[in-house]
Amino acid sequence: MGAFYLDIKKDLLDKILSGVYPQGSIIPNEYELAEIYKVSRPTVRKAVQILVGEGYLEKRKKRGTIVCDPTIRQEFAQVIQTFDQEVKEKGLTPSTKVLTFKKEKAEEEVCQKLNLSETEKVYKLVRLRYIDDQPNVLVTTYVPCRLFEHLSDIDFEKESLYQTFHKEGRDITSIKRKLDVILADETCADLLDIKNGDPLFYFHSTGYDVTHTVIEYSIAKYRGDRNSFVFELSNTVYYS
Amino acid sequence: MGAFYLDIKKDLLDKILSGVYPQGSIIPNEYELAEIYKVSRPTVRKAVQILVGEGYLEKRKKRGTIVCDPTIRQEFAQVIQTFDQEVKEKGLTPSTKVLTFKKEKAEEEVCQKLNLSETEKVYKLVRLRYIDDQPNVLVTTYVPCRLFEHLSDIDFEKESLYQTFHKEGRDITSIKRKLDVILADETCADLLDIKNGDPLFYFHSTGYDVTHTVIEYSIAKYRGDRNSFVFELSNTVYYS
Repeated sequence: MGAFYLDIKKDLLDKILSGVYPQGSIIPNEYELAEIYKVSRPTVRKAVQILVGEGYLEKRKKRGTIVCDPTIRQEFAQVIQTFDQEVKEKGLTPSTKVLTFKKEKAEEEVCQKLNLSETEKVYKLVRLRYIDDQPNVLVTTYVPCRLFEHLSDIDFEKESLYQTFHKEGRDITSIKRKLDVILADETCADLLDIKNGDPLFYFHSTGYDVTHTVIEYSIAKYRGDRNSFVFELSNTVYYS
Repeated sequence: MGAFYLDIKKDLLDKILSGVYPQGSIIPNEYELAEIYKVSRPTVRKAVQILVGEGYLEKRKKRGTIVCDPTIRQEFAQVIQTFDQEVKEKGLTPSTKVLTFKKEKAEEEVCQKLNLSETEKVYKLVRLRYIDDQPNVLVTTYVPCRLFEHLSDIDFEKESLYQTFHKEGRDITSIKRKLDVILADETCADLLDIKNGDPLFYFHSTGYDVTHTVIEYSIAKYRGDRNSFVFELSNTVYYS
């Protein structure tokens, strides 16, 4: 019974994300939720409070608890996490389909980003990643073959790339990211189950190990309707 | 003569941003640039190196120095800066038009974000901000009237909001931001000089003073074609 509020939180979140409780609607009040889940009001309150803290719900004076926008909050935290970890921490279920995984001669842009010579080969890994069975992000990752000999043996539908780097003794310890916005083309829209021309977050990332060797270069397209990125600036104030 | 490389940098950047040197093109080599600007090659090299560091240019083996995408890099730094400061640091010229500035009764969303009672008034400030005379971001800011009595007297085409807070003894010391992507509607497209349906960065920000009092709530729409956000994750590695 200990963590029962987490089950309620997960159920409420599922209902928010699936639209049972649509954006802008009022969810049942504490009494009603306690009745629905057959638990005490403090248990319900705890579940609701977590969702308020995570930004999915908002308490409104007099009106009750309202559903905020349905996007999944991604934290620009100061920690590097795997996709699976991040999603699981939100009480959701991650999964991955590998669309392409092969060795190839790197294109010029990739050579440049990975500091490769023109003849060097890279692993090209294209993954479609799901949250609760809904496609969320399409990622293409390039890794120098020279750094990891046995990557081809690994099933990246089951294994995390970062965990694999870790097992091979080459943790990613810093990542540089550039974020743009673009519109989905037809292929991308089909894969992500959105409409042609819908807006996407468009990330270019370069991952480094502790010696500042570039380990990966990746290009990710996140659905704009299902993701938000939250972050906090603080402390140092500079006004000229 | 001391900082002449900065003038060259600014001129090169102007040419990149205005499309004289379009994305993907090769800029003149060091010899040619030294000739064009009538300076030494080390001076030219210094200017080019800054633009490489800022991500506007990239050195390609054999081919030369290539123009990267033409967006303005915004840093998700750990410091809070004013728009003017950020833009000036890039060697560009900021300016601001105030579209609306008035006191009004706060709407529910604004009441909520600023922790106001239902009868409290807010300043509503709508600004269109330009970089080198090109509209870049449309920002609507709400500030509780209770906290600042004399804001109405201030010309926000000349003064920075954050500097005004500073002068009034209420520095913003932390900001929470949520980032989404949306498509420009007709009005927004007209104001930002883009096309209806073009993608935008869509920020909701809440600014706090050192006592964690909410000082401002703002909604900003950045042109997607002219801005990129870059940031770095590092140090702590968490793999479950």
